[in-house]
Amino acid sequence: MPTKFKSIRPIILSGGTGSRLWPLSRSAYPKHLGPLLGEESLLQKTLGRLKNLPILDPIIVCNQDHRFLVAEQLREIKINPKEIILEPCGRNTAPAIAIAAMACDPEEILLVLPADHLIGNEKNFTEAVISGIELALQGYVITFGVVPDSPHTGYGYIQRGDGLDAGFKINKFVEKPDLSSAKNYLDSGEYYWNSGMFLFQAKSYLKELKKGSEDIFNQTELAYSKIKQERDYSWLDKNTFEKIRSDSIDYAVMEKTKLGVVIPMNANWSDVGSWDALYDVTPKDENQNVLIGDVVSIDTERCYIRGAHHLIATVGVKDHFIIDTPDAVLVLHKDYSQKVKNLVEILGKKGRLEIQRNAPV
Amino acid sequence: MPTKFKSIRPIILSGGTGSRLWPLSRSAYPKHLGPLLGEESLLQKTLGRLKNLPILDPIIVCNQDHRFLVAEQLREIKINPKEIILEPCGRNTAPAIAIAAMACDPEEILLVLPADHLIGNEKNFTEAVISGIELALQGYVITFGVVPDSPHTGYGYIQRGDGLDAGFKINKFVEKPDLSSAKNYLDSGEYYWNSGMFLFQAKSYLKELKKGSEDIFNQTELAYSKIKQERDYSWLDKNTFEKIRSDSIDYAVMEKTKLGVVIPMNANWSDVGSWDALYDVTPKDENQNVLIGDVVSIDTERCYIRGAHHLIATVGVKDHFIIDTPDAVLVLHKDYSQKVKNLVEILGKKGRLEIQRNAPV
Repeated sequence: MPTKFKSIRPIILSGGTGSRLWPLSRSAYPKHLGPLLGEESLLQKTLGRLKNLPILDPIIVCNQDHRFLVAEQLREIKINPKEIILEPCGRNTAPAIAIAAMACDPEEILLVLPADHLIGNEKNFTEAVISGIELALQGYVITFGVVPDSPHTGYGYIQRGDGLDAGFKINKFVEKPDLSSAKNYLDSGEYYWNSGMFLFQAKSYLKELKKGSEDIFNQTELAYSKIKQERDYSWLDKNTFEKIRSDSIDYAVMEKTKLGVVIPMNANWSDVGSWDALYDVTPKDENQNVLIGDVVSIDTERCYIRGAHHLIATVGVKDHFIIDTPDAVLVLHKDYSQKVKNLVEILGKKGRLEIQRNAPV
Repeated sequence: MPTKFKSIRPIILSGGTGSRLWPLSRSAYPKHLGPLLGEESLLQKTLGRLKNLPILDPIIVCNQDHRFLVAEQLREIKINPKEIILEPCGRNTAPAIAIAAMACDPEEILLVLPADHLIGNEKNFTEAVISGIELALQGYVITFGVVPDSPHTGYGYIQRGDGLDAGFKINKFVEKPDLSSAKNYLDSGEYYWNSGMFLFQAKSYLKELKKGSEDIFNQTELAYSKIKQERDYSWLDKNTFEKIRSDSIDYAVMEKTKLGVVIPMNANWSDVGSWDALYDVTPKDENQNVLIGDVVSIDTERCYIRGAHHLIATVGVKDHFIIDTPDAVLVLHKDYSQKVKNLVEILGKKGRLEIQRNAPV
């Protein structure tokens, strides 16, 4: 590595339950800690793809209920974390990142990565991160914008403004668009998908958070002051932490700061946030099916079928996803992938344990 | 009952495995012995709907492996059979009916009924049967033709000829037609579905079988001579019985006899021979769904979903059947209902036990 490269502190956000990937993903065993695609978990893949970057030991922020799973997965891939910070509840990304930033030297460059994304092209990922280092050292708050390859309506978009040495000033953030807006964004070449990956110095983030959302900054600082190191983990105080206003880094910082920069990243990114997204990134057979486990199919096309302990048989099924687990089976038309979340809400209201516990084997 | 009515001997054909209703129907536990629709089995419903007819004790012909199930189901509805005749293997309907006919007084009128059909209108069923008695006594061989209400391509058709006091001479039998032929048949008003229900004197059937298919008659007579009464059952000799040429009553007798009569029956008949047929006869909710067991559905329409020990969740599923059993799940598009048979064949070639054994609970 050229000597101008500073070390980077990975901050891995390992929260979220991935309810749109139910019934494989459950609150006790969320998607990014399970082997969704191949043998490694998404958390492990996220850490593994940092190997060509000059990184320091990572900080993991996760729910306290997942601490054993997280620690075990780090051990498996021989990663020794600087800290595993345990949240007693979710308060979205702005507080999670702030706690991690407070745990670091203010000068450190933080690379914030969700643990539940996939990146196909590690080289381009690495290059994009490295290209942001100088800007980060200048105090910019950088987000990586995924170069869109389709008018996806499930992501937020970022419109670029004036060009910098690397990347662009951010013109504006836009919410998930309708299809016609998304097509315009794609055609314009000026828009990127909001990926949730960030690069900045710890002090830059905290300064911009304080400016933009002072209440969050203050309450997070209080929570950080009460953090306890115990049994290899950093435990956040429940009473203090749960009083933090829940907000995302996008709202609390990025949309407010004048130092926002977007660096395009063309790295075959996927948030694997739903069954159709997982289908898209999984290798398929000649019928465009993904068949995992004990599956026997006739006249079946464009399906993602994942068996567990059952025989799954299909006849004449097209464009559906079938996810079998020992205690629940989901059958889903692919156009309804985003609505699995609604299903999980309904199951939650019914008090169904199938959304919480890990499936019995 | 008017005194001219002779007693009728019901001959219940309880063979067949109902492979198109897999995975609920299995060779060890075929569809007509399970509670497909309501609590009673189809066998029990078949016997129950005879209550307004002047019947003698029935004869049941079934596979020897099903003897306990059959005997138990008869006990449950307090039916005392004249005989339960056990086949060591299936040889289709012509021999099965012949064995039963040989077990009866030659003058007796036999009402031959498959055990796996549903009849919605018992009154019309009863009237059609009674209307055939006089013709049966005159030596005619009567089949009941279901008045079609759609151009169904999954049934054979019978074209009527000249009218008799009751019913019509049979002009011809036709195989399962294509859709355009089926539409012509429906429009003509001259065609009926071949229901597999028959009425004749024992001696008439045996005489016509001997005339039309003498080899079957002779070998069946030999098999009948070796039948053994043991432990409440009539056991057919395997070596003799399996040498009988397998053939249906339609081919072996009805298409050859000059004494064939068709009596129209408008009794809301269904052979319940496949998942779509079962869907058609099952009461549905406001989304045209049949949801049985532990099912939670969103945006789901025109589906038949049958849970067993799992939670079955569906999102955005239309026109599919989902059948859950403890060891296998079938997901089927309704247009492919006839192909479940092919699936079962494939599973058979793979040596899968899920098509044979009753599902573990």
